[in-house]
Amino acid sequence: MIEHVTPIDPEGLHRSPAFAQGMITPPGPLVFVGGQNGVDAAGRLLDGLGAQTEQALRNVLAVLAAAGSGPEHVAKLTIHLDPDVDPDEAYAASAAVWPYRTAVTVLAVPPARPGALVEVEAVASIPSVGA
Amino acid sequence: MIEHVTPIDPEGLHRSPAFAQGMITPPGPLVFVGGQNGVDAAGRLLDGLGAQTEQALRNVLAVLAAAGSGPEHVAKLTIHLDPDVDPDEAYAASAAVWPYRTAVTVLAVPPARPGALVEVEAVASIPSVGA
Amino acid sequence: MIEHVTPIDPEGLHRSPAFAQGMITPPGPLVFVGGQNGVDAAGRLLDGLGAQTEQALRNVLAVLAAAGSGPEHVAKLTIHLDPDVDPDEAYAASAAVWPYRTAVTVLAVPPARPGALVEVEAVASIPSVGA
Repeated sequence: MIEHVTPIDPEGLHRSPAFAQGMITPPGPLVFVGGQNGVDAAGRLLDGLGAQTEQALRNVLAVLAAAGSGPEHVAKLTIHLDPDVDPDEAYAASAAVWPYRTAVTVLAVPPARPGALVEVEAVASIPSVGA
Repeated sequence: MIEHVTPIDPEGLHRSPAFAQGMITPPGPLVFVGGQNGVDAAGRLLDGLGAQTEQALRNVLAVLAAAGSGPEHVAKLTIHLDPDVDPDEAYAASAAVWPYRTAVTVLAVPPARPGALVEVEAVASIPSVGA
Repeated sequence: MIEHVTPIDPEGLHRSPAFAQGMITPPGPLVFVGGQNGVDAAGRLLDGLGAQTEQALRNVLAVLAAAGSGPEHVAKLTIHLDPDVDPDEAYAASAAVWPYRTAVTVLAVPPARPGALVEVEAVASIPSVGA
């Protein structure tokens, strides 16, 4: 019986320190976090890729926490980066706020909101209390 | 015990009238709706952003209904808009057919089908009969 | 009681031989497969759309197998194709390795990895042993 999200890293695939190739979610409730930009509580978009990336991930963390989940229960992050930004710079900015390996998709896609350089969505398991 | 999709809107995040920051799905079956363009039953692409947006959402609603779900059970919509269209115009067109708040990701991304201005996918909970 | 992923093809929608309009997942564990490019076990990106498409799908299959799932349990594929590639050519290349109909979203989006022409992610059900 699976009780926690579990990374899948098959032998035949290149192993990454940054992400898992797949993640299993246990049976039970999930939380789908809609696309988060680097906006603060007042709805203002922060300035620059580093600040936007950190804030977008903090917003994801806030939604996860409010749902009774957390970063260690995330099954997949989908990260949309404006085509003009450097993925390595965004990854470096994420390291301070996101210490967990999970499955990811990273795409060179502008968010629809003007000026937004990054948009992050997530799906996560919600563990049973006490599990 | 969660029995219905539940919006998550943490205090620290900007609150939107249009969408929830996250949605919880209860345990049980889900339906994944593949990307829907503004095509009619004969496979013809409708003309213009307003007509395509309404039709794409009607197609999502038809798939949800056939799966025993519905718009009030949707956990997330992912909305892909051609980079040349105005997101506010698409949102206005959606209001007539989609009255529910859910988690969303909106991206400036052309659908692969030539001429398609909008593509919408969804994931939703399927409630137990009688629940 | 649903025990297997089930395609949803409502009468009012155009029916495609290539994909289902929606897929139901039964209750139980899921596997989320992160975006797979056409890279081999050594992390090298293969050359050309055909080779990359086949390899990306083989990588998806490897993650599914390692999770106790498989292509017949997939609920949705999300296929990102570089805007300069021909979707029909990618579809033809996929036919050799992916014989199952499922729900799909296909977008004209460059993967973030330089040179990658295709990125495929998946979500699938994990069947109970013996079910």
